[in-house]
Amino acid sequence: MLEESFQDQGSVKHCHGCGTDNEKGLRIKSYWDGDEGLCTWQPQPHHCGGSGDIVNGGIIATLIDCHSLNLAIAHAYRAEGRPIDSSPKISYVTANLNVSYLRPTPIDKSLQLRAKIVKLEGRKASVRCTLSADGQLCATGEVVGVRVARK
Amino acid sequence: MLEESFQDQGSVKHCHGCGTDNEKGLRIKSYWDGDEGLCTWQPQPHHCGGSGDIVNGGIIATLIDCHSLNLAIAHAYRAEGRPIDSSPKISYVTANLNVSYLRPTPIDKSLQLRAKIVKLEGRKASVRCTLSADGQLCATGEVVGVRVARK
Repeated sequence: MLEESFQDQGSVKHCHGCGTDNEKGLRIKSYWDGDEGLCTWQPQPHHCGGSGDIVNGGIIATLIDCHSLNLAIAHAYRAEGRPIDSSPKISYVTANLNVSYLRPTPIDKSLQLRAKIVKLEGRKASVRCTLSADGQLCATGEVVGVRVARK
Repeated sequence: MLEESFQDQGSVKHCHGCGTDNEKGLRIKSYWDGDEGLCTWQPQPHHCGGSGDIVNGGIIATLIDCHSLNLAIAHAYRAEGRPIDSSPKISYVTANLNVSYLRPTPIDKSLQLRAKIVKLEGRKASVRCTLSADGQLCATGEVVGVRVARK
C-alpha cells in the first residue's frame, strides 16, 4: 500500500461515498491488492442502524457501491496502460447494486472491503465485493457499472 | 397525511437513515398512503455522486432500504391491530437489497419514494420501492426484510 489511493489519484472531490473533499461524506480510500481493490474504513457512531452497535445497511451499500466503482475505473485505466485521471477521463455509473447482509456489522470495528472484477462485457463491468469485520464476513455485494464519458 | 410519520410514532432515534434524532443522518419520514408507504425527501448538496448535480447511489440505496423496512414494520403492527411501537416491539433487519438505477437522480429536486409489500412468508417481508423525481422514475428497489424481536 505504498501507492496513493485511487481516490487521491483522481479528481472526484465531492462524491458522498468517495469524494476526497466531502467533509460530510464517507471519504473511502481504495488501493490495489494484486488485481483486487482493498479498502479499510472505520464507521463513526452516527453511521449506525436501528441498533446503535451495528452499521446501517445503507452505509454498507454505499461503501460497496463506491469501492466497487472505483475499482472498475482504476481497472479501466490500468488496462489502457495509463494513470488514473489521465485524459480521456474514464467514469462508471452504477446500473445495479445487490447487497446481501449476512450478519450484523459491528460499528466499533474497522471494516475491510475487498472487490474483484468478475465480468467485463462491452461498457459493463460486474464487480463482486465482500465486507468483513475482524475477519468475519458481514455482507457481500454485486455491482454492475456502466462506463460513461467524463468531462 | 394527517397522521404522524412511522418514524415519529416509533422509538428508533439514532438510525442513520431514519432515526429521528440523528443530526448527521437522512431522517426520512414515511407515511401511509392506502396500503403503500410514501416518503418525500429533499437531498442536500453533500449527498451528491461523482457529478455534483446527481444523488449518490448509496444515498438512494439508503433511502430505499430504510423506507421499505419502515413500511414492513408499520404493516406488521397494523396487521396485529395495534399502534407502532406498542409492546411486544417489532423490528425488521435487511437480508437483501437490490437497487436498479434507471436514470440520474437530480439533487435539486424533491424525491418521492413509494413502497409496497409484495410478499410475506414466515418472518420474511419482500418490499418493492420506487424512487421518482418530478414524476420521472429514477430507481427501483427490492428489499427483503426479516422480522426480529426487539427489546
